[in-house]
Amino acid sequence: MQTFSLAPYQQEFDALLVSDTHHKRYLSGFTGSGGYLLLTPSGSELLVAGKYWQQVAEQSPQCQRFCTDQDGWLNVLQQRLDVHSIERLGFEAHALSYQQVMQLTQALSQQLVATDHVVTPSRRWKSAPEIALIRKACEITEAAIEQGLAHFRFGMSERELAAHLEFYARMLGAESIDFLIVVSGERGALPHGRPSERIIGRNELVTIDFGVVYQGYHSDVTRTFCTGEVAPQLQQLFDAVYCAQKLGVEMLAPGIAANRVDHTVREYLGSLGYGEAFCHGLGHGVGLQGHEYPLLTPDSLATLEVGMVVTVEPGVYLSGLGGARVEDTLVITPSGCESLTKLPRQLRNIFEVADMVKNRQE
Amino acid sequence: MQTFSLAPYQQEFDALLVSDTHHKRYLSGFTGSGGYLLLTPSGSELLVAGKYWQQVAEQSPQCQRFCTDQDGWLNVLQQRLDVHSIERLGFEAHALSYQQVMQLTQALSQQLVATDHVVTPSRRWKSAPEIALIRKACEITEAAIEQGLAHFRFGMSERELAAHLEFYARMLGAESIDFLIVVSGERGALPHGRPSERIIGRNELVTIDFGVVYQGYHSDVTRTFCTGEVAPQLQQLFDAVYCAQKLGVEMLAPGIAANRVDHTVREYLGSLGYGEAFCHGLGHGVGLQGHEYPLLTPDSLATLEVGMVVTVEPGVYLSGLGGARVEDTLVITPSGCESLTKLPRQLRNIFEVADMVKNRQE
Repeated sequence: MQTFSLAPYQQEFDALLVSDTHHKRYLSGFTGSGGYLLLTPSGSELLVAGKYWQQVAEQSPQCQRFCTDQDGWLNVLQQRLDVHSIERLGFEAHALSYQQVMQLTQALSQQLVATDHVVTPSRRWKSAPEIALIRKACEITEAAIEQGLAHFRFGMSERELAAHLEFYARMLGAESIDFLIVVSGERGALPHGRPSERIIGRNELVTIDFGVVYQGYHSDVTRTFCTGEVAPQLQQLFDAVYCAQKLGVEMLAPGIAANRVDHTVREYLGSLGYGEAFCHGLGHGVGLQGHEYPLLTPDSLATLEVGMVVTVEPGVYLSGLGGARVEDTLVITPSGCESLTKLPRQLRNIFEVADMVKNRQE
Repeated sequence: MQTFSLAPYQQEFDALLVSDTHHKRYLSGFTGSGGYLLLTPSGSELLVAGKYWQQVAEQSPQCQRFCTDQDGWLNVLQQRLDVHSIERLGFEAHALSYQQVMQLTQALSQQLVATDHVVTPSRRWKSAPEIALIRKACEITEAAIEQGLAHFRFGMSERELAAHLEFYARMLGAESIDFLIVVSGERGALPHGRPSERIIGRNELVTIDFGVVYQGYHSDVTRTFCTGEVAPQLQQLFDAVYCAQKLGVEMLAPGIAANRVDHTVREYLGSLGYGEAFCHGLGHGVGLQGHEYPLLTPDSLATLEVGMVVTVEPGVYLSGLGGARVEDTLVITPSGCESLTKLPRQLRNIFEVADMVKNRQE
């Protein structure tokens, strides 16, 4: 639960209707997908269906709760706005459909004010408890990668390997899987390839990009592995990515412009002839969403600050050949950054990882 | 890919902008989450980012494709509307945010017309290929339940058991997990309980409600199992649910009002003293979404028709004691219905299921 003040917005609106699920959770602790959070000058109120009644009491003791089963949520909202003498109600223009806004317009006597990203900016700095949850999500993800890889054998498809990784993430306590990319061989050239029926072969690169959710908070980590010695071209490509990622991470510090980090890494890969082959942004924020503010892209206007959590994930993708990516999730600290993802970054053979996991278990 | 005619709407708009992901997929075959489908009197066009270019060619050969990377999607849309001399553009009011509609309003010279569920009604009747995909999704789900249960041992939590079921669903080819409810003992009283850290005990009921996605189409099946003989109260509760579900399924036929099926089952459970304990609708449609039209609820206005796919899923939930639910996904046929879910519906001991799976594998 984070505090939030309406004061800066008093010229625009008197109360704010929060419908964005992530914002609702951030400001109230309530994790249900339904319901609305009403922020008024006198405090926070949750308008929810009866099925959430007990959950709100447990998760959001600081919020008043109102059940919408009987009168419908629009009538309850009208009543609450009247009680607080609200004249202008702000709403999140990105998080209500056009249809929902038309329903509000018809039902309410208040003036409606479309707002844009009122809550988003405060989410960019993570508190210590938030960082602890992201750290835990990263730990689960990394342990699941290693334990899942221990089941690899030749003849297995990308999809089957992915199933093992997801299994361990769940066993280790992930509340959900955000996404899982497993691409091998030529498919390594797909930056966002979903695990396919392709059988993973010998002497190939295998890129694994995995994000899970723990108590609402996301992880994001990529490692590239191999299944035996790879062609010199692929080794060269990996080495470039490895050094580029290290370069990017070493630049992270408070006060650095996000686009400068992207630019430097991009220049470096360009100098090695991989300029065109690095076809996406360098990184992004991580928190209640897998991708959030700030972006580390060529046109980002963000400046890094203490408490931001971001990824650094350069990749090189060569159609018909393959690709590689290395990614950490890192928190900006007063002296630079700390990586919340800890797996070795160098190119490791999957079978060596498997042996290590088995030795550890014995 | 389904055909769709704009003719019935010619009084309202000349072209339709489809942004609902499910509608887009239904009408074009394109599975990407981004992009827009433009339906004009001369045909279908997909406006997509460059990263989807190849995918559109493969999935939607009947659609013209336009890349939005260079000019931005609003400019490309304006160009296409001009080419077709469109004056009134319909949009899906539920599937664009208020913010997006404001952007359209500012960018386009056309008149914008908010529409409500133009595409939804045609999705209610499933074609033979659609039914085949739902059937496959159901097969995967049921095999995953049995194979996952074979790993059950005392000391396991609901979450750990769930991880095994999800693992097999993925191994058997599910493209994603829609949801998985595993509730045991007292938690059986939660109709939508997520798998928790609760350790599954002896002589308990365990309700498993599982839905996966296969090539875009959903499954939905619930079975209640036990971990040894249960108290007479629980056995009685299960028997009531079992008979209620059978009663509902036997009523399914073309021409039957959906609310009549709900009413009859509700009356039956009421006659056994479980009226209040059956606290949700009897069923819902299944297709590209896990919950879609028609609903089998007290206030549903739907009439069942050949080709509709619906669930029948009564449950009884007694706070402090537990609960049970039995659910099939069924397709309405000229003579009644066929269940796409086939697992035995009676109360089975998890260990008997496990033995059966092991014998089958030997």
